Amino acid sequence: MILDKYDYLVIGGGPGGTPVASALAEAGKQVLLVEKGAGLGGTCLFEGCIPSKIFRESARRLRELQESAEFGLCLPTRDVHIDWSAIQERKQSILHLRSIGAMQRIRQNPSLDVTLGSAMFLDSTHAHIIPVSDSPVDIEFRQAIIATGSRPFRPPIRGVDNRQVLDSGQILDINHIPKRLAIIGGGPIGVELGQVFNTFGSEVTIYEAGPHILSHVDQDLVEHLQQQMAADGIDIVENCHIKCISHTGSGVFVEYQVDDNPSVHRFADTVLLVTGRQPNTESLGLENTAIEQTPHGIQVNGQLQTKESNIFALGDVIGQPMFAHWATAQALSLAKNLMGHPTPFPDADYNTMVIFSEPELAMAGLTETQAQSRDIDYKVARYDYKQDARAQIANQARGQLKILYTSGGHRIIGIHILMEGAGDLMGEAALAVAQGITLEELANAIHPHPTLTESFAIAARTALRG
Amino acid sequence: MILDKYDYLVIGGGPGGTPVASALAEAGKQVLLVEKGAGLGGTCLFEGCIPSKIFRESARRLRELQESAEFGLCLPTRDVHIDWSAIQERKQSILHLRSIGAMQRIRQNPSLDVTLGSAMFLDSTHAHIIPVSDSPVDIEFRQAIIATGSRPFRPPIRGVDNRQVLDSGQILDINHIPKRLAIIGGGPIGVELGQVFNTFGSEVTIYEAGPHILSHVDQDLVEHLQQQMAADGIDIVENCHIKCISHTGSGVFVEYQVDDNPSVHRFADTVLLVTGRQPNTESLGLENTAIEQTPHGIQVNGQLQTKESNIFALGDVIGQPMFAHWATAQALSLAKNLMGHPTPFPDADYNTMVIFSEPELAMAGLTETQAQSRDIDYKVARYDYKQDARAQIANQARGQLKILYTSGGHRIIGIHILMEGAGDLMGEAALAVAQGITLEELANAIHPHPTLTESFAIAARTALRG
Repeated sequence: MILDKYDYLVIGGGPGGTPVASALAEAGKQVLLVEKGAGLGGTCLFEGCIPSKIFRESARRLRELQESAEFGLCLPTRDVHIDWSAIQERKQSILHLRSIGAMQRIRQNPSLDVTLGSAMFLDSTHAHIIPVSDSPVDIEFRQAIIATGSRPFRPPIRGVDNRQVLDSGQILDINHIPKRLAIIGGGPIGVELGQVFNTFGSEVTIYEAGPHILSHVDQDLVEHLQQQMAADGIDIVENCHIKCISHTGSGVFVEYQVDDNPSVHRFADTVLLVTGRQPNTESLGLENTAIEQTPHGIQVNGQLQTKESNIFALGDVIGQPMFAHWATAQALSLAKNLMGHPTPFPDADYNTMVIFSEPELAMAGLTETQAQSRDIDYKVARYDYKQDARAQIANQARGQLKILYTSGGHRIIGIHILMEGAGDLMGEAALAVAQGITLEELANAIHPHPTLTESFAIAARTALRG
Repeated sequence: MILDKYDYLVIGGGPGGTPVASALAEAGKQVLLVEKGAGLGGTCLFEGCIPSKIFRESARRLRELQESAEFGLCLPTRDVHIDWSAIQERKQSILHLRSIGAMQRIRQNPSLDVTLGSAMFLDSTHAHIIPVSDSPVDIEFRQAIIATGSRPFRPPIRGVDNRQVLDSGQILDINHIPKRLAIIGGGPIGVELGQVFNTFGSEVTIYEAGPHILSHVDQDLVEHLQQQMAADGIDIVENCHIKCISHTGSGVFVEYQVDDNPSVHRFADTVLLVTGRQPNTESLGLENTAIEQTPHGIQVNGQLQTKESNIFALGDVIGQPMFAHWATAQALSLAKNLMGHPTPFPDADYNTMVIFSEPELAMAGLTETQAQSRDIDYKVARYDYKQDARAQIANQARGQLKILYTSGGHRIIGIHILMEGAGDLMGEAALAVAQGITLEELANAIHPHPTLTESFAIAARTALRG
């Protein structure tokens, strides 16, 4: 049942809205959480991180399976075939499990109401709530938090509305493995799904507008990754302008131009369009408030406050960086501040990210480009996983580690890793950059042998020896 | 060529001796490193961590392979067979690669001589060196470091010299998978290899003298692990006294008694004896010096100095804890101190360890037992990997995390994890305990989603919410 009046209205039940609503309700506030989708979890759970990682896990296992003989496991690998529907079923069951779990956890709190439906601001303290399975109702709120996330951006390319052109959400529901997959956009999603479908047998081409894929991460590591992708048969077309996508019998032609060269067209049966995301701000009734926005998202100040002083916004809907864990970090800080415990808001200089490429590419803190643009005097400690015991054992001895640290003081400002398992090394990286740990402190912490974490200490010691 | 006179004699080229010799030589000292075995690397490389992890990697892949159908990978799993000789060949090639690599790295240093052979003290500044492939020679040294490691301890059980009774080194060279494997000793090696051979099809029984296996680690986690081992069909006999091992036609009978019950005997074709390790102090000529020792090892003070003020010892040869990374940490501190840079020696309260069980069991810092015995007022933050996104994706959602922190101040004093991949989370754990990180600092570091490292932040936040 929806009450007339709430302390907080939270719009969006993803990794931003859910934790802020929970934290406020746990503090005894009356909270209404409104989620437009089928359940709690947002893009991350239903159309992003989780389903793509489920596909990737099957791909990873297929790769390992193909190496079985080297590990003394003899099987007729030629007889292996992929049951795509089983992968989709596994995805559905994990999504269902997580969504149910999130709803059960949140429903334990008596002062938190959850409604599946939509919300529209009537003014800065009233909203019209339209539940999916109940009558609409108007409510009053003291404060509100907008965490409605983002959705795939469709650029104005001719033919982009062709039904064989899928966005990053749609491809996760595809009912078969494409034969020829054209991926427009060489960002994290394009690279991850490109590798996954390549492993499953798709012929994959990635079309990237810029001079490099993954332009925001360490370019040394990207170069290594790109070599491996090429060796796996993924074709990466850079500096590439897509002119149009035209329908043909069983698929499409992607027509593109590289630099000033003549246009070329190439056949694909499926196109994945991953050219960025746009904020979900429509039908929120923002026009009934003083809230301002740009095409990049709702405008907020350093305290996540919109132009309406009692309405806040966080996560993808306020623009880059768009990560589930970033939205959660913002949500937890906002909740503390709203409850009267002044807390610093997350600092992008200490953010982390993992690209679930094969191998994983992960980073914490600053890139070299960022450090240079700020005139930071820094050095780089390095480690090559070719020499790593654990990596050799796992047949993964082909990655790189870079630790950026200040020349004076040796404070760690960035950690960049290309290595299968890099994501699970990011906790240490996050802690190191957030706490301003020095290279000496990293070197002296006793990292256990034989694990991948040793790489941090060995890189630090090698750099300190000069 | 061996010189007449060295600044430093280092005896033992394992994970303790090699880094101390390298560091001293890099500082310009004349160093002689004498290694008794076939190459550099010690027990860890040739008879311990590395080969057992290579077996484990094949076992891990076999387990995953058996789950293939769930991941949409269809193959005739009944047709899989294990080529043990391929696993042994893979082991040999990695050992060779690592040993060669270590020798190449060390030979780059002109002031470091490496001799394969043995060394015996003549007095506190002279030693008799017997190279394997050259004539013996006497040398003079200013200071010496003993890092000769340890070897398996054979307890005085009747029948223990039977050729079907193997120690932890010998079993790594076994040329077949045992049918019935009896493991005497429920420590880390017994558990690791017990699970590995169980996965490969051996019928495994572990005989443990105490009331629990893995007595030095968190007993909550051990209980979970033990349930999984039982579910896998591993028989664990606790409170068990081995009376004798008697030869029979194709194997042995292990005769044992539990508490005061009547003796029982059980057949095995192979026995693995893993009942601790003893220091390698024989034939070092310690009797020609003032160095003192106990059955647990060479006696040293807090600066790793023996009773001869110019002779130091480190690693397994001075007793517990016996870990490769612990020996390396001691070696690096000793080298700095010897070169005139006063540096604290490693503190066992900040040590880490990984038991490569299935799933891995890892720890950093203090156990609850240790905290209690010191009257530390502490609390425990917990996390169940059943709810973890990454663990669910990898089909590994069955582990536990415990973070011990002081009730006042919230300083982290111990981290304990049962989870596949726990070893790679130990870098963060090592840094947290070594740096006295608080629960709040851990909670605020931005851990990327979806990775296992999130568990640290979520456990911390959950505990802080109360």
